[in-house]
Amino acid sequence: MIKTPYLLFLGDAPDPLAAKVAQGIKDWRPENCVGQLRLDGCKADMGLADMTLAEAYEAGARTLVIGVANRGGVISPLWKDVLLSAMDHGFDLASGLHNLLSEEDDLVAKAAETGRELHDVRVPTVDYPIANGVKRTGKRVLAVGTDCSVGKMYTALALDRDMRAAGMKSTFRATGQTGILITGDGVPLDAVIADFMAGSIEWLTPDNDDDHWDVVEGQGSLFHVSFSGVTMALIHGSQPDALILCHEPTREHMRGLPGYKLPSLEAVRDTALTMAKVANPDCQVVGVSVNTQHLSDEDAKAYCAEVEARLGLPTIDPYRHGAERLVAALQAL
Amino acid sequence: MIKTPYLLFLGDAPDPLAAKVAQGIKDWRPENCVGQLRLDGCKADMGLADMTLAEAYEAGARTLVIGVANRGGVISPLWKDVLLSAMDHGFDLASGLHNLLSEEDDLVAKAAETGRELHDVRVPTVDYPIANGVKRTGKRVLAVGTDCSVGKMYTALALDRDMRAAGMKSTFRATGQTGILITGDGVPLDAVIADFMAGSIEWLTPDNDDDHWDVVEGQGSLFHVSFSGVTMALIHGSQPDALILCHEPTREHMRGLPGYKLPSLEAVRDTALTMAKVANPDCQVVGVSVNTQHLSDEDAKAYCAEVEARLGLPTIDPYRHGAERLVAALQAL
Repeated sequence: MIKTPYLLFLGDAPDPLAAKVAQGIKDWRPENCVGQLRLDGCKADMGLADMTLAEAYEAGARTLVIGVANRGGVISPLWKDVLLSAMDHGFDLASGLHNLLSEEDDLVAKAAETGRELHDVRVPTVDYPIANGVKRTGKRVLAVGTDCSVGKMYTALALDRDMRAAGMKSTFRATGQTGILITGDGVPLDAVIADFMAGSIEWLTPDNDDDHWDVVEGQGSLFHVSFSGVTMALIHGSQPDALILCHEPTREHMRGLPGYKLPSLEAVRDTALTMAKVANPDCQVVGVSVNTQHLSDEDAKAYCAEVEARLGLPTIDPYRHGAERLVAALQAL
Repeated sequence: MIKTPYLLFLGDAPDPLAAKVAQGIKDWRPENCVGQLRLDGCKADMGLADMTLAEAYEAGARTLVIGVANRGGVISPLWKDVLLSAMDHGFDLASGLHNLLSEEDDLVAKAAETGRELHDVRVPTVDYPIANGVKRTGKRVLAVGTDCSVGKMYTALALDRDMRAAGMKSTFRATGQTGILITGDGVPLDAVIADFMAGSIEWLTPDNDDDHWDVVEGQGSLFHVSFSGVTMALIHGSQPDALILCHEPTREHMRGLPGYKLPSLEAVRDTALTMAKVANPDCQVVGVSVNTQHLSDEDAKAYCAEVEARLGLPTIDPYRHGAERLVAALQAL
């Protein structure tokens, strides 16, 4: 287990989206966040107190969590001084990057010298099976998106929270580093070997009570050419009873892919449902989750109403307004 | 490079499909196959001479190629005696299994003792990039299937052969262990880490002459719940100008998935083309390749004619009848 509470390291994040790991921890486990540490030029801000390593340790923080991602998942040389110094100050390190803490000789040496722990939550620690497609008991809902980083994890976390509040049996199933850092458990799907992707999701969402819901965090998008294979494996591995469509209406192009327009919600609905029905012929699309963070209250309301009328599905921003209407749609299944 | 010619090891293959690696090498590089070595109960037969290790070495074979796959890619304990003895007889070993030769202590020790080489063609040896979706020069055709093991590699190899015969510029691009063992080059896609799947295929099919075709070996099926993510990454990473649909008409259920029916060719056409157009809006489905190995000549002809009339696409068995009509369809693009 990773020692809490955390100091969130935001590095030299080029934009707020790059710090979505830190944002997720701060939003869903604020009690675990003592402060933030930022380098010159950092464009992200969690609204936490900016602290030095010494101040954060004094305030109780015990793990420095790398809350920022570079494209390709590299540990920036700019960060090294902070990471090495953190261990001298008494911190363990935790990271969800592709480039592992445990592959950096200087970090490994420092950890050994100081007795600190290096947590690479991205590293699969299980020998996942090849998916067998056998029907499992219990129910599963999966968030699928028009793009990466449109709010699939937030949607799943909010849904899980509100399902529990409604007295339903629910478990959030993390499939990415942030989710794993938040819950301490899950499958780091984008680091799994191709042949075992769907099997890892079957493993993550096993047989359960008939009235239990696994709320499965989505990844990528069927329409994102860099990561669509990961999304596809989630759709088949999770064998979903229900899909929630996730969208961010102000995005001008697919994340990281200039020139690639976002698909329509209708296109995602049709293709994702066609694919989901291969694994579960009874699967239904039950609602739409809109990330309205860049819209005014009024515009957010109007946009959701327009989508709801167009698609005939309950449409909400679960983070802004709560996920109760999606919970009701799942209860009605 | 792997030393040729080969002795093909078929082990205790439970059925002919399990030995598709050996079958591919034998069919496309027969000049490299000195003989076969089978254990008790082996249900596969390449039609090659059954040889002992001593006989095969005497006949010139220099590498024992594991031409059989177990589900999950495990090196069976039953095989160990043969593999160890092969190195004593002077053979190198080559394998495309998930379970690596280089992870077996006894094989590694024997290789060191005897000076032999262990070739794990499944191991990625390149740090593949994340796909960027940027439009590349040259043309690409990808084989997509209704199921696994329906003839996608054969289709691509036959297409490449017949395109060259027609004076076209063509390169077969291997994406699986058999293709890599046949050509000595390629991407072992099912062993690539999820996030880098599509990028590995972009790497495999780079910018080229405007009139050059990459003929990309397909993997899995969008409708196979165990491996659909791999197929999806191929469709987006290869940025295809053309798709060939591949089918085996006597299959009673999806390979390895009792209870899962094969999709229609129409369903594969529609979903694969929808997804391919994300990466290349001009992509077209140009033909159908039917694996008619379990049909009589008459039934094969009738089946292809029926599909051709139904889909309005040239429909042939490239292995049985040649791929010329598919080549013509590509030339007409």
